[in-house]
Amino acid sequence: MNSEKKKALQSLKTAKGQIEGIIRMIEDERYCMDISNQILAAQSLLKRANLLILEQHLSHCVKDACHNEENADEKINEIITIIEKLMSK
Amino acid sequence: MNSEKKKALQSLKTAKGQIEGIIRMIEDERYCMDISNQILAAQSLLKRANLLILEQHLSHCVKDACHNEENADEKINEIITIIEKLMSK
Amino acid sequence: MNSEKKKALQSLKTAKGQIEGIIRMIEDERYCMDISNQILAAQSLLKRANLLILEQHLSHCVKDACHNEENADEKINEIITIIEKLMSK
Amino acid sequence: MNSEKKKALQSLKTAKGQIEGIIRMIEDERYCMDISNQILAAQSLLKRANLLILEQHLSHCVKDACHNEENADEKINEIITIIEKLMSK
Repeated sequence: MNSEKKKALQSLKTAKGQIEGIIRMIEDERYCMDISNQILAAQSLLKRANLLILEQHLSHCVKDACHNEENADEKINEIITIIEKLMSK
Repeated sequence: MNSEKKKALQSLKTAKGQIEGIIRMIEDERYCMDISNQILAAQSLLKRANLLILEQHLSHCVKDACHNEENADEKINEIITIIEKLMSK
Repeated sequence: MNSEKKKALQSLKTAKGQIEGIIRMIEDERYCMDISNQILAAQSLLKRANLLILEQHLSHCVKDACHNEENADEKINEIITIIEKLMSK
Repeated sequence: MNSEKKKALQSLKTAKGQIEGIIRMIEDERYCMDISNQILAAQSLLKRANLLILEQHLSHCVKDACHNEENADEKINEIITIIEKLMSK
């Protein structure tokens, strides 16, 4: 597993722990704005994980596909789809 | 607990389950774009939970503060801060 | 006109000038990534203008409505709608 | 000029017109929330233009670079940079 994936894993595990904490905060009727801020923090961790995954995908899988002339078009179409999703969020 | 908080709880629990699934996907070296799409789905669930929390906070806590003239300014300043965070994301 | 509105005006005028420049870049078949970066810069200016408008609206109009008990609920409902739009972007 | 660029040009020209309108709205001290909504509409037009530019860049320039083995890596690095910017917005 490459280093980006390891870092992505770490971000996801931290995010999971934060979400468990947010669930408890809601159950404990904690102040709404504190809950909202914690959700924003968890979202940032997910975004970081996704960026790491996409970066290493482009750097390895897409570049390899280009060099080896194997389904490069298909890989690039996938990138177009992800960019569309990122921009519609 | 009001209905919005219950729905937010449900979204968070679903997001937590998805993140557990994504962690396994990375460990199983599943295809990167499938992982990325799953992370985007989990992000949408967190966003939905946050919107529910903010909506009911504004509808109840901020409106009550306005009517009872209790720290209304402070509550509105908190909303300004959250909007700044949302727009800087 | 308050200072936030003046700053928002300045951002919008700068954005307008940038967009005129981007239109020429496309007509001159300039490199796509340079065009994309310029569009992102113009978007940031619009976002800055919008944040300034929302901040001063909350600080003045919404707070005044709370203190004077005039259509405070309506103003807060408008804020909920804007937050929904910001989070669906 | 390809069709995506023509559509992007159209979006940008419409956005420019909207921004001129928003500038007048602020000068005429129009209601803040109406101004904010107009800014959000102009932002959507810029986003649409940017997506069109990126889509045709990937479909033509990046795919060609892959097939002709000309600076494919450089082009893909540019895509990584744009995705980083999109995700940090």
